[in-house]
Amino acid sequence: MLSKNQIKEIQSLQSKKFRDKHQLFIIEGIKSVSETLEFRSKDIEHIYGTELFLNSHAKILKKTAQNFSLITEDELKKISSQNNPNNVLALCRYFEEEQDVFNLNSHFSFYLDDIRDPGNLGTIIRLADWFGVSTLYCSENSCDLYNPKVIQASMGAFLRVQLVYAPLSEIIQQKSVKAVYGALLKGKNIYKESLENGLIIIGNEANGINDENLKYVNKPMKIPAHNTNSTESLNAAMAASILAAEFFRTLKN
Amino acid sequence: MLSKNQIKEIQSLQSKKFRDKHQLFIIEGIKSVSETLEFRSKDIEHIYGTELFLNSHAKILKKTAQNFSLITEDELKKISSQNNPNNVLALCRYFEEEQDVFNLNSHFSFYLDDIRDPGNLGTIIRLADWFGVSTLYCSENSCDLYNPKVIQASMGAFLRVQLVYAPLSEIIQQKSVKAVYGALLKGKNIYKESLENGLIIIGNEANGINDENLKYVNKPMKIPAHNTNSTESLNAAMAASILAAEFFRTLKN
Repeated sequence: MLSKNQIKEIQSLQSKKFRDKHQLFIIEGIKSVSETLEFRSKDIEHIYGTELFLNSHAKILKKTAQNFSLITEDELKKISSQNNPNNVLALCRYFEEEQDVFNLNSHFSFYLDDIRDPGNLGTIIRLADWFGVSTLYCSENSCDLYNPKVIQASMGAFLRVQLVYAPLSEIIQQKSVKAVYGALLKGKNIYKESLENGLIIIGNEANGINDENLKYVNKPMKIPAHNTNSTESLNAAMAASILAAEFFRTLKN
Repeated sequence: MLSKNQIKEIQSLQSKKFRDKHQLFIIEGIKSVSETLEFRSKDIEHIYGTELFLNSHAKILKKTAQNFSLITEDELKKISSQNNPNNVLALCRYFEEEQDVFNLNSHFSFYLDDIRDPGNLGTIIRLADWFGVSTLYCSENSCDLYNPKVIQASMGAFLRVQLVYAPLSEIIQQKSVKAVYGALLKGKNIYKESLENGLIIIGNEANGINDENLKYVNKPMKIPAHNTNSTESLNAAMAASILAAEFFRTLKN
């Protein structure tokens, strides 16, 4: 049975302050936890699972020598932030910083300029995984990778996509990035330009691309719309989806 | 000042049962309410706004003879379902059923097969608006258009996109649809096929396309991924974004 203190400690990891303090984050649900067991089992600190989870994962739990607590569904509800928790919650240690070897002159990636919505960030991580973008770049004010809603929305893709938080100017310099794309109202139709590998800036949900970063955009572009009615817009994750697909189609497919 | 009964009645519209009973739904925030005032002012039943909203909209409120109540930010918090309500909440009457004149042999559209997540539905409505898809089709078990989260996520696009809830077989028959697309693991690469106008089925978030509907798919297709790793997937709104952009690019652009 979980003690009140244990429950409180796990709940505290909903906040970045306590995640940073303990260097731990939460992974929920059978799919994400199973994949973590498969690909990064050494990073798992503890698994809290129901009987159903235990029965289907006993072998791998034993093989990877996990710390495991059998809990009831009611207990899971207490430690989960989800309305319908799915049989398991794992505490995972912060990933060690990997060396960033991604080459922005032979593959495209995104620079997320103050993306604040965890659902958007998680979705973009999943998108990156789909299109083989193994490193994503984020401004330092962007949403925290370890936010439980990011982990949840990424559907396991956080295990395969590296996130680097740094100022845009630094990335451009370190990586000798030539093409810096930004979606702007006065940009050129993406379907009429020949696209190159480089960095695509996705602006903040409410304010778009920061002025500070706008000056680095040397390839302004736009996704053509049916009408030019200015009330229409696409959200950050949708724009990123369409752009990733188009870069992938023309450069990699 | 709002009475307890008024607050209770407005709050009750979060639930479909009470929306259907009163034939009313909630629109929140300056952008969406302003657009509703501009394009469908006759459908508005009542507006509850702060002084800030009143000051910037006095003219149009008077011109369209709206029922308006000036409320405080604290009162707005009581009737709003949002964490940070944005100055105004309007009650709007259900839209009258318009005749569905959309031609699926001269434009593409989506059939949403039990899309349950209101954020996904709202996002897809916004996407449809962007690409000039003026009618969207939904299975009868799909999320309700008038769900406040759908209205919110659509960012005003619900004013311009008609939703028709009906069985797929009915739509195909009524509209003499020739091409029925479905994203399937064994489908053909969308970039290697010549696309036609028709209906693109977007499956349920967890279960994909219903068996009942699968049999109507005569154009199975897939969005190519970088790896064929089966753990990767795209969510419903992302897949819809990429597909809409590709149909638009090849058929309309």
